[in-house]
Amino acid sequence: VGSGPGDPDLLTVAAYKLLTSDPDALVVADRLVSPEILALIPGEVKVARKLPGCAELAQEEIYWWCYQGLNQGRHVIRLKIGDPFVFGRGGEEILAFRDFGVEAAVVPGVSSAFSAPLLGGIPVTHRGVAQQVVMCTGYGREGSSPDLIQYHKEQTVVFLMAVGRLRSLCDKLIELAGYPRDTPVAIVEKAGCPEQRTVVGNMMTIADIAEEHKIKPPSVIVVGEVVNARDNVPPRALHALDKGLPALKSFFLPL
Amino acid sequence: VGSGPGDPDLLTVAAYKLLTSDPDALVVADRLVSPEILALIPGEVKVARKLPGCAELAQEEIYWWCYQGLNQGRHVIRLKIGDPFVFGRGGEEILAFRDFGVEAAVVPGVSSAFSAPLLGGIPVTHRGVAQQVVMCTGYGREGSSPDLIQYHKEQTVVFLMAVGRLRSLCDKLIELAGYPRDTPVAIVEKAGCPEQRTVVGNMMTIADIAEEHKIKPPSVIVVGEVVNARDNVPPRALHALDKGLPALKSFFLPL
Repeated sequence: VGSGPGDPDLLTVAAYKLLTSDPDALVVADRLVSPEILALIPGEVKVARKLPGCAELAQEEIYWWCYQGLNQGRHVIRLKIGDPFVFGRGGEEILAFRDFGVEAAVVPGVSSAFSAPLLGGIPVTHRGVAQQVVMCTGYGREGSSPDLIQYHKEQTVVFLMAVGRLRSLCDKLIELAGYPRDTPVAIVEKAGCPEQRTVVGNMMTIADIAEEHKIKPPSVIVVGEVVNARDNVPPRALHALDKGLPALKSFFLPL
Repeated sequence: VGSGPGDPDLLTVAAYKLLTSDPDALVVADRLVSPEILALIPGEVKVARKLPGCAELAQEEIYWWCYQGLNQGRHVIRLKIGDPFVFGRGGEEILAFRDFGVEAAVVPGVSSAFSAPLLGGIPVTHRGVAQQVVMCTGYGREGSSPDLIQYHKEQTVVFLMAVGRLRSLCDKLIELAGYPRDTPVAIVEKAGCPEQRTVVGNMMTIADIAEEHKIKPPSVIVVGEVVNARDNVPPRALHALDKGLPALKSFFLPL
């Protein structure tokens, strides 16, 4: 099940019903799922631990929790940030559940790859500015192509899980992939959460700007001319959305 | 407001509340928004007409409807299929609303670009198979780069709004962008709707297969080796999801 970027209102109706309907269900959540979403869950929640450099170990623990829950005959919900099939090992986890004798159903979520730019006021495609969007992670293999997508003026590139490698990413994009030094770059941090922030710079400046503002995961990096289209987005929308959840909330009735 | 791919359960909670809470609101919807979603709306709905070859005229009519509704002091909700900022003119429509003196708020939706492959059982990124995803439309400008993304083995390409140009698209990908003739291609039609179908072929065969099965919009085309990862997705998940809405429904309590 995908959690979307963080605002509980950006859960799908399907995810909301699954998470809130069964107090006996075991929810196994990613470390970065927002506290606002975890607060909706009436029953037991296990959250993946942060084990720096030990992603595989953390993943083993997640599988172990799921296995235990299933063995107890419980409904196990694997709650993943964003969309489960976008750089989220969703396909692998389906195979692991199958090894446990269970055929999992998958519920898509709002991916941060698209929604974080939107919530930061950046239309990833804007006619005359960008006609393609490429999604990458910061943790692909080293080297140039196909890991580093070559520069195209009318293309937007969105990097997920890359903020920890921002400086070397920018260096490589300039040196190996032909990106002009003044290519606009924006980072949207904690999209859809009350503390959402957006910082804007270019290939040369963004790593310093991110450092200065102590930008942390989950953050989405948007590269390309559409970052400037942000100026075309009305200030109230930007303002409301940059404030994230409480501002959006004002439109809605309680559920 | 994004409607997601078609299943009402794949609306965001935000969109669900907006669409169902105010019987006096005017909802101006895209032509391809699913009837199941339109059926949730308690008040007035205007649906964009199909005007072949006259997309601009249809867009003018949409703006006119929105303008009228706003002039009447009503809450106007522009309901767009998928996500409003992914090939959806969302940025332009914000500017149009601004011309009307209104600062629109934007609510992201589940994009078909990611969810249609997922609902068809295709993980767009699968470790060791694809580490990048490119989103394109079928209605970009003619020519090669940057409109046609060059072939990379570990890359998935998703085409939105391209099923009407499938044959010429495949020809161009082979001739101008270096795609091997046996590159796997899948089409997921009406993702998230009860009548969802998935067909699979390769660069050479998919146009004939689509014609034979009379595949129509809204359809999403997935190109790349991840199409074969579909075989790794458990049959029950595939089966449940290929049946779309009713199968998913069985998991949920009524709202």
